[in-house]
Amino acid sequence: MSVTPTPADRFSFGLWTIGYTGADPFGGPTRSPMDTVHAVEKLAELGAHGLTFHDDDLFPFDSTEARRRTEIDRLKKALDDTGVVVPMVTTNLFSHPVFKDGGLTSNDRAVRRFALRKVLRNLDLAAELGARTFVMWGGREGAEYDSAKDVGQALERYREAVDLLGEYVTDQGYDLRFALEPKPNEPRGDILLPTLGHAIAFIDSLERPDLVGVNPEVGHEQMAGLNYAAGIAQALYHGKLFHLDLNGQRGIKYDQDLVFGHGDLHNAFALVDLLEHGGPGGVPAYDGPRHFDFKPSRTEDEAGVWDSVRANMANYLLLKERAEAFRADPEVQEALAAARVPELAVPTLADGEGYAALVSDRSAFEEFDAAEYLDGHGFGLVRLQQLATEHLMGARG
Amino acid sequence: MSVTPTPADRFSFGLWTIGYTGADPFGGPTRSPMDTVHAVEKLAELGAHGLTFHDDDLFPFDSTEARRRTEIDRLKKALDDTGVVVPMVTTNLFSHPVFKDGGLTSNDRAVRRFALRKVLRNLDLAAELGARTFVMWGGREGAEYDSAKDVGQALERYREAVDLLGEYVTDQGYDLRFALEPKPNEPRGDILLPTLGHAIAFIDSLERPDLVGVNPEVGHEQMAGLNYAAGIAQALYHGKLFHLDLNGQRGIKYDQDLVFGHGDLHNAFALVDLLEHGGPGGVPAYDGPRHFDFKPSRTEDEAGVWDSVRANMANYLLLKERAEAFRADPEVQEALAAARVPELAVPTLADGEGYAALVSDRSAFEEFDAAEYLDGHGFGLVRLQQLATEHLMGARG
Amino acid sequence: MSVTPTPADRFSFGLWTIGYTGADPFGGPTRSPMDTVHAVEKLAELGAHGLTFHDDDLFPFDSTEARRRTEIDRLKKALDDTGVVVPMVTTNLFSHPVFKDGGLTSNDRAVRRFALRKVLRNLDLAAELGARTFVMWGGREGAEYDSAKDVGQALERYREAVDLLGEYVTDQGYDLRFALEPKPNEPRGDILLPTLGHAIAFIDSLERPDLVGVNPEVGHEQMAGLNYAAGIAQALYHGKLFHLDLNGQRGIKYDQDLVFGHGDLHNAFALVDLLEHGGPGGVPAYDGPRHFDFKPSRTEDEAGVWDSVRANMANYLLLKERAEAFRADPEVQEALAAARVPELAVPTLADGEGYAALVSDRSAFEEFDAAEYLDGHGFGLVRLQQLATEHLMGARG
Amino acid sequence: MSVTPTPADRFSFGLWTIGYTGADPFGGPTRSPMDTVHAVEKLAELGAHGLTFHDDDLFPFDSTEARRRTEIDRLKKALDDTGVVVPMVTTNLFSHPVFKDGGLTSNDRAVRRFALRKVLRNLDLAAELGARTFVMWGGREGAEYDSAKDVGQALERYREAVDLLGEYVTDQGYDLRFALEPKPNEPRGDILLPTLGHAIAFIDSLERPDLVGVNPEVGHEQMAGLNYAAGIAQALYHGKLFHLDLNGQRGIKYDQDLVFGHGDLHNAFALVDLLEHGGPGGVPAYDGPRHFDFKPSRTEDEAGVWDSVRANMANYLLLKERAEAFRADPEVQEALAAARVPELAVPTLADGEGYAALVSDRSAFEEFDAAEYLDGHGFGLVRLQQLATEHLMGARG
Repeated sequence: MSVTPTPADRFSFGLWTIGYTGADPFGGPTRSPMDTVHAVEKLAELGAHGLTFHDDDLFPFDSTEARRRTEIDRLKKALDDTGVVVPMVTTNLFSHPVFKDGGLTSNDRAVRRFALRKVLRNLDLAAELGARTFVMWGGREGAEYDSAKDVGQALERYREAVDLLGEYVTDQGYDLRFALEPKPNEPRGDILLPTLGHAIAFIDSLERPDLVGVNPEVGHEQMAGLNYAAGIAQALYHGKLFHLDLNGQRGIKYDQDLVFGHGDLHNAFALVDLLEHGGPGGVPAYDGPRHFDFKPSRTEDEAGVWDSVRANMANYLLLKERAEAFRADPEVQEALAAARVPELAVPTLADGEGYAALVSDRSAFEEFDAAEYLDGHGFGLVRLQQLATEHLMGARG
Repeated sequence: MSVTPTPADRFSFGLWTIGYTGADPFGGPTRSPMDTVHAVEKLAELGAHGLTFHDDDLFPFDSTEARRRTEIDRLKKALDDTGVVVPMVTTNLFSHPVFKDGGLTSNDRAVRRFALRKVLRNLDLAAELGARTFVMWGGREGAEYDSAKDVGQALERYREAVDLLGEYVTDQGYDLRFALEPKPNEPRGDILLPTLGHAIAFIDSLERPDLVGVNPEVGHEQMAGLNYAAGIAQALYHGKLFHLDLNGQRGIKYDQDLVFGHGDLHNAFALVDLLEHGGPGGVPAYDGPRHFDFKPSRTEDEAGVWDSVRANMANYLLLKERAEAFRADPEVQEALAAARVPELAVPTLADGEGYAALVSDRSAFEEFDAAEYLDGHGFGLVRLQQLATEHLMGARG
Repeated sequence: MSVTPTPADRFSFGLWTIGYTGADPFGGPTRSPMDTVHAVEKLAELGAHGLTFHDDDLFPFDSTEARRRTEIDRLKKALDDTGVVVPMVTTNLFSHPVFKDGGLTSNDRAVRRFALRKVLRNLDLAAELGARTFVMWGGREGAEYDSAKDVGQALERYREAVDLLGEYVTDQGYDLRFALEPKPNEPRGDILLPTLGHAIAFIDSLERPDLVGVNPEVGHEQMAGLNYAAGIAQALYHGKLFHLDLNGQRGIKYDQDLVFGHGDLHNAFALVDLLEHGGPGGVPAYDGPRHFDFKPSRTEDEAGVWDSVRANMANYLLLKERAEAFRADPEVQEALAAARVPELAVPTLADGEGYAALVSDRSAFEEFDAAEYLDGHGFGLVRLQQLATEHLMGARG
Repeated sequence: MSVTPTPADRFSFGLWTIGYTGADPFGGPTRSPMDTVHAVEKLAELGAHGLTFHDDDLFPFDSTEARRRTEIDRLKKALDDTGVVVPMVTTNLFSHPVFKDGGLTSNDRAVRRFALRKVLRNLDLAAELGARTFVMWGGREGAEYDSAKDVGQALERYREAVDLLGEYVTDQGYDLRFALEPKPNEPRGDILLPTLGHAIAFIDSLERPDLVGVNPEVGHEQMAGLNYAAGIAQALYHGKLFHLDLNGQRGIKYDQDLVFGHGDLHNAFALVDLLEHGGPGGVPAYDGPRHFDFKPSRTEDEAGVWDSVRANMANYLLLKERAEAFRADPEVQEALAAARVPELAVPTLADGEGYAALVSDRSAFEEFDAAEYLDGHGFGLVRLQQLATEHLMGARG
């Protein structure tokens, strides 16, 4: 590999990603559970910066308090020993049978109360470990059948929960923000807050909207056929990109959780370019962790797990190199200008111009020659895309 | 048909729907253009309440002012003669070559100014005709290639435009609200504001958010694999369902614009139930027009156009009947209770309970028996769905 | 329910369907394993005719021969006691880690040999139990990455395997035919023989093509966005519909395995109509078992499992009733004739006419007035679809 | 661009591709029609080898014979002048209103006869121009509604037609083969022969199967979520890859017809590798024209059309370079071996071994240690995919 990751790259991995045993809907594990300390040590060795986890990744669902503490302490020691940090923590509200109809929006109120308590407990742990982001993925919040779930009430209960959690974090003085993770479906037929758009709309209705953002995952948005880089641009536009999950997906199907760069490569290139450079010619748009939420393929043994970890980071760094070369290429800059991409940053109205002035500007309408756009005023977008493609393939300079 | 529509049902149709000539990406028209007056008369005869239109549906893009006025006056006379109303108007910013890279977010600033003027002109017409909703579908606002469009700036330009239009409407004292219509793709590879979630998130960032809502179309949300009825529930939750487009779509593919009820029938049932009854046991959730935005199949001659119009309304009314019987069935009410659907309307916290009280409630966590949910506490959701299915098929009572 | 199933309806269920414990990619079981004898007794009680199974459903992967025989004998006794039959048997080549890269097309030759032996052993069991169909679902035959699998060689190995199995069955004199079950993806990123079309094309290349047909599953074809009823019509056209898997799927997403009738209801109606009546006005097209391959939702306890079983059969019978009424309705017959549906059964060439006669028929081309099809010769397909919709909803007579 | 196409590369383009005027379902043309002679001259100048066309591309649907001949003669002269050849011809049975319910499978028998005559006439032209392949895309052969089309009879009529055409070509002594082009949907809701699998299955039922193969298009297979390279491998396996259509598609949505390489880049890499090298380590698998069936984006003027033409060829050549380097890399060869990819070419049974010998080989089953595959026997597929990714990005050597 031509690129070597360092902690400065801020790459982080979920404990459940490297610890994925390979169980899927049609088969059991192909790998044994991975020990947490071993995981942390290997991540450090490979140049990763951070580890993230759900409570249940670290200690079993029904651990005694003693067992729970033992596992936490082992983790803390490993972190100390390696310098690996925990930038994000999240709570598992989806694996246990108790959550079969959801956690915070289960039709069963007792389950909702239990789920809230499980999250509150894990917020304390997140604060203890110095995490700055608390992700909430509501994978079981949803339904297979339309009459099984009153969606309006589900949103109301979710709001009640997130508001309560926000109040708790605020009162405790925790330096933690929440990031909601959207997904359209799987494991439920339809999931509440199916895309980052739905999640941001919901967040705007909360008591403390500033405390809550989104954690969009590449594959989740692509499972709805949506353009991930474009979605991230909207999340950034609204100031809501608090965290993100990088991985790979090959089209609209089950959640693949492939290595980042092993899915839609064009969009991965656009994404890294956006994260690193913001809009064309801009400054870095995102300064949080580059977090990988993927599954090492079930065909692999442990060596393949680490190959996967390396591949995620290598692909990010390669794409970053490609994006830098793309931006630096004078022909690209010329093509962007020809395509009038920078002109979109110019306000449509002149400084101080209102609708009255616009209406009285005959050049804008009465004398504007729309017919010239037939056979003329080509935008040159194919040329631009070809330049991007050649940079992506390392075929220019 | 067992059901006869009347104006009280508030069914409305786009002029472009019945006037669709059958042109598609692989073939030319199979029907000649339909005269506006004839269209209005037939709609009235068939029991429809309203007609909606884009400017270009009524008069050609480059009409002289005289031609434009003639067509408007013909329409107004037909409306007077028939009692048909115009509840909604919209502007075509997608058909002419000038809009090939978009209207309000074209990379070309002159196009953006022209587009704004076209909309302003049509707002006046909407007000003149008494429309209460102004729909904005940004079908060309988007791109095929990621580097061709700076999405952040596109959102900024769209915001600039909608804010200006809102100011205009407010200043003119027009009784008009805006409804943004999302679509994930087609005719662009990816469209700005691809789902109703993205649109509401955007609306929340506007200067006059109360003036702007959404106009979700069945097929558009389903083109992203999303549950339309669930999306509508979220739009209602946010108070943003200003208008809607009913039609049919058979899965993730090109925009089919089939008759309402000829697509996903289960979801159509859930939708009508939601619109007419709100959540389970509730009151009507939506009191606006039931607007059909569909395309009579290209295989049909004019008789088929009117068959399609009848079918849209008949299916809505049939589904309404089915939904009423579903709600009235004691077994359904019992099954809903067994599935704890109404329990979701009960707040998770008791009245006045905060997180401190919750944390001290040992029954909520320490003494809660999660293990009981293995083999127990079944939700009975399949039974509920089967009751819905049998009602939908008219197989109960 | 208005309809009561009997063994004459030939409904069969997979042991793995009612025995599904609810484990999915994001959660463990919500139900304990079901005892085989109990399963058979309940199926009999509910009016089912048959039980089907994989070897691993009946006895664990690594059972001793004694354990295996005990389980088989328990099953046989239950069958004898209840009259339930075993019309189909299949082999599990996908759950155990040994099959992580496939069974009959694993890159690992030793695995392929092991897989063949596992199938051979289960063919003997199928014959012992009187099954007439042996299904082969190659769920792990595939790959996530294009260079990981030489598809041409995979087909060659699959051919080698099926030919060998065909030879074995022939030599043993077993009255068994094979039915290949296609699926586009999940659990592999892409699966060999992704649709029924691909499977039939492959079958035509075998040594004993007459011994091999397909077992298409509703959801599997719909996961590729394909029309299941149309696919079944093609399978019937080629004489290859040896068996089928009925269930429900709501669009292109993970494999949902819902109850039959809880997915695409229009297509389910068309399917039952086709199976029961063949083409319009025809005779039953399929006389094999009506086999349900579904998963009772994970939200359910055992009561929900049996609700699901009942719902599958009830929906089939309701759709059969609806299809019969549709066929019997004179207005439908008139509309079919108007749409010229029966005219498609008339050969395009007259009896004895060849291309020379066609070329010399000036009425066919030189004097044919194609222009009449603009605004004329409407096919009336929307009217037909509306009649189908109303019959489906039980809204006519 | 680093790579310059020459006629030896055998790149060909459809006249309708460079001549695409930009009309789509939501807008009219943005470019004027392109003159045929100009098109041929430019293709020659840019290094293309061939031109393909539908009859209606060259002369209007209702041309007089004189007009038709004039256009043909102009084309022939341009071909003579430039050395461009016509490797493939096809017939338009989808644009005119007469084909609104299909051509060779229209419910209307008179239309079917007309369609056959149109094809017969164009076969003569294909032969006159020296084409070796005659493509048949049945874009209108299908339906939106299940009861509108008797699929079994549609297949029977299609068979009747293809058999007749085969007889004609044989009798005339034309050196022409047929290639059926599958597509799942658009412009019809569902199209007959939706994938290459369905098409090959159908071909096997014909009178002259050897005369008929497939012409799979990248985007068409990907519109069903299918792996194009894997599909091509199956078509090759059956000896049915007579021609192919290269382009780009970004997921399951409307037919995008982007430039080859602007869609799924990983799969494009695998495809070129397969076409040029066959399976791993093999010889070229396909020696026909590399035909581009794409649409220059509607945003472009004529300059963009030629940019698109150049980009298609450049991407093919770049991918070919990348595939050659991939094959030549010793680390790749080592990784392929470690993943046991070549082992799939080894028959599962030893030479002369039958099922009896296999059954008596205790090492194959009784003594085979399946348990070793838990935590062991990793396939190393992620490493292989990462090597492919790095070669694709030009990041190795």
